[in-house]
Amino acid sequence: MRAVDLIRKKRDSAEHSREEIDFLVSGYTHGEIPDYQMAAWLMAAWLRGMSRSELAALTEAMLHSGEVLDLSDIPGKKVDKHSTGGIGDKTSLVLAPIVAAGGLIVPMISGRGLGHTGGTLDKLEAIPGFNVNLSLQEFRRVLRECGMGLIGQTKEIAPADKLIYALRDATSTVENIGLICGSIMSKKLAEGIDALVLDVKTGSGAFMKREEDSVSLAEIMIETGKRMGKRVVALITDMDQPLGRAVGHATEVAECIEVLNGQGPADLRELSLELSGWMFFLGDRTKSVDEGRDLAEKMIATGQAREKLRQNIKLQGGDPRVIDEPDRLPKARFQGDVPSLVSGDISGTNCEQFGIALAILGGGREKKEDAIDHAVGLEFHKRIGDRVEKGEALATIHYNDATRLAEAQHLISANYFISQEAPRAKRPLIRRVLGP
Amino acid sequence: MRAVDLIRKKRDSAEHSREEIDFLVSGYTHGEIPDYQMAAWLMAAWLRGMSRSELAALTEAMLHSGEVLDLSDIPGKKVDKHSTGGIGDKTSLVLAPIVAAGGLIVPMISGRGLGHTGGTLDKLEAIPGFNVNLSLQEFRRVLRECGMGLIGQTKEIAPADKLIYALRDATSTVENIGLICGSIMSKKLAEGIDALVLDVKTGSGAFMKREEDSVSLAEIMIETGKRMGKRVVALITDMDQPLGRAVGHATEVAECIEVLNGQGPADLRELSLELSGWMFFLGDRTKSVDEGRDLAEKMIATGQAREKLRQNIKLQGGDPRVIDEPDRLPKARFQGDVPSLVSGDISGTNCEQFGIALAILGGGREKKEDAIDHAVGLEFHKRIGDRVEKGEALATIHYNDATRLAEAQHLISANYFISQEAPRAKRPLIRRVLGP
Repeated sequence: MRAVDLIRKKRDSAEHSREEIDFLVSGYTHGEIPDYQMAAWLMAAWLRGMSRSELAALTEAMLHSGEVLDLSDIPGKKVDKHSTGGIGDKTSLVLAPIVAAGGLIVPMISGRGLGHTGGTLDKLEAIPGFNVNLSLQEFRRVLRECGMGLIGQTKEIAPADKLIYALRDATSTVENIGLICGSIMSKKLAEGIDALVLDVKTGSGAFMKREEDSVSLAEIMIETGKRMGKRVVALITDMDQPLGRAVGHATEVAECIEVLNGQGPADLRELSLELSGWMFFLGDRTKSVDEGRDLAEKMIATGQAREKLRQNIKLQGGDPRVIDEPDRLPKARFQGDVPSLVSGDISGTNCEQFGIALAILGGGREKKEDAIDHAVGLEFHKRIGDRVEKGEALATIHYNDATRLAEAQHLISANYFISQEAPRAKRPLIRRVLGP
Repeated sequence: MRAVDLIRKKRDSAEHSREEIDFLVSGYTHGEIPDYQMAAWLMAAWLRGMSRSELAALTEAMLHSGEVLDLSDIPGKKVDKHSTGGIGDKTSLVLAPIVAAGGLIVPMISGRGLGHTGGTLDKLEAIPGFNVNLSLQEFRRVLRECGMGLIGQTKEIAPADKLIYALRDATSTVENIGLICGSIMSKKLAEGIDALVLDVKTGSGAFMKREEDSVSLAEIMIETGKRMGKRVVALITDMDQPLGRAVGHATEVAECIEVLNGQGPADLRELSLELSGWMFFLGDRTKSVDEGRDLAEKMIATGQAREKLRQNIKLQGGDPRVIDEPDRLPKARFQGDVPSLVSGDISGTNCEQFGIALAILGGGREKKEDAIDHAVGLEFHKRIGDRVEKGEALATIHYNDATRLAEAQHLISANYFISQEAPRAKRPLIRRVLGP
């Protein structure tokens, strides 16, 4: 078998056998197939597409390029959630403690932010001392002790995905549902989970702007997971505006603590409860999703979820005092409002640009190596359907570098759409549920 | 400007500006754009196509990546011919001496064989001592002295093409008329020629199997050449069977000498005369193509073309005695016939496979670094329309390695199509002439 022939085959729209996909993934991971051949193949696959069985083979090949965790020695069902990413999407920090407090195991391997979206690892690192770079052995210990663990992709987990993702990033072959599915599912299935809840974002702040694309991605992820014997559901959820009020790292952690204290913004609370409900149900902890939601609410009301997060922060080296004293989180030096230029009703946002505004302030990265500022953030005061008066603050910017303020203000102001007409009907936060 | 954005642009079917093409070609040539990004761009360009103006920009960027010869200090019009390659295609060795003897300058920079097609440089190297690796200075000296020179691509000539071609070869992005046009024309225009005759092959032994593809390639090469102020015509010529009787290196040189001696196979003689006629006409040596043909016939009849080749071989370090004593060319040790398994009329051939048969005998290469055996060859006795009796030889194989014989015999036998029906009308050798 030769890589050049497989490139030709995909270029000419033919379907690969499982052996051919294995040859490509294994050859590339072991350095036998050079970057330039993989890059040509990725572009051909991007443009020609992949069949469901090619996709399953790709996912499995990437999964088996590394270690697949066997957590069977830790009692309890293992359940995780994965989000395709958005602006202010911080539910992991809420639902992991809820679900772990409720008796399931949540072995969460997460990513960093790139481009306009944030990443769970970056948010966690806003907590002084929090270590996301645990070895798999340390990860097991943390999971065994507190039922939840939050780490980054180790070198043992799906190394093929790590290599291929970096190459896709440099060759404009990221936004393809087949390749995205392979990347997500190979990492998630390596966690040794029994069930997975997918939060597939849709809208102006998501990778998938159109609901039909989000549904397509959700469907192939569900199929890929089910082929491998996992229980999988996908919630298609709104990303036409930020989730919650806070966008940034320290500020998002603080907002999650609010929710665990029974407060916080309604949309973040609602989505976290719904996702937790599904996790409890798929993990056989409750007989229905509604029962799962009830259990989640109870975990918040009794403070058990908050105490679970405190325990986890401590076990992962972080300062647990942030739970009661959020002021211990990094804080930006300055604040500036973004006033509305007109009066009217908020009809929509170009949410992706808010993520870029955060990046401009130093809170995001263009390249993987870039350092980020955990203290800067955006605080949104207006949601779709809200009334705003001219001069009233749409958002507040928490910043450290005054030279970046004007551009961030402009980006936020220009990407709030304000209408003089009667507001349209609000679209639901949870658009569809697929796969159960 | 960033390569990753240009890859995305081509992936999404947008048209590049001239500056963007320059950025890609220049960045890649100078090692600032890595192989993997160029590979992804090439695949996107392969699948999405390029506009005429992108193509012109690509060709010019590759041309200007290196030196463009200025031969204005050598008196006389400079004319060249380029063939897209086929089986037994050896006209360069016939027409270069004819046209140089007739008073024009033929500065021919050629390639090596790859895959199923032969290359002029490999054929020349069958002549003991012949040096195709002249410096540009030596090339000028040879041109000045005898009016013709036959060398390989030097490092000064279109280095971008050399790099990009090697990458295309490894990434299955060779067979694309835009990229082929850019590669051919950037090298040919670097020769400092006034006019160019293109021999675009079509049929089972050509890169372009379908006549319409050959015509498309011819059209964009003509347009690209004319945009740059050159006189260009293209002949679409038959490659449904080998050109001449001989396929191999030494054996093809011998056949060319036969033609220069007024003998040799009719098709090779005819095509060489026609191409020479066009070269004389485009080079303003004659008032018409017919006059050009007459001049070419005269150059053969008077022996001037043969003497020109002798002079050139001597100047390029070869043994000129091969002209009168072809036995001095390398000779394979063994001969074996390929008998026909049935009686009937030859209705066609899968000519590409004959090239592969030669490669199997050691006369071709899979990779650029492979050494080749100049002595081995194929001699074809039957042409399309000929009658063959069962047991009669279709071809004779000249070989050195007996372990390769059976496979080569089988490939030849299996790819001669023999029909019991009345033979169809012969298709003309020269199908169409475009561009004059």
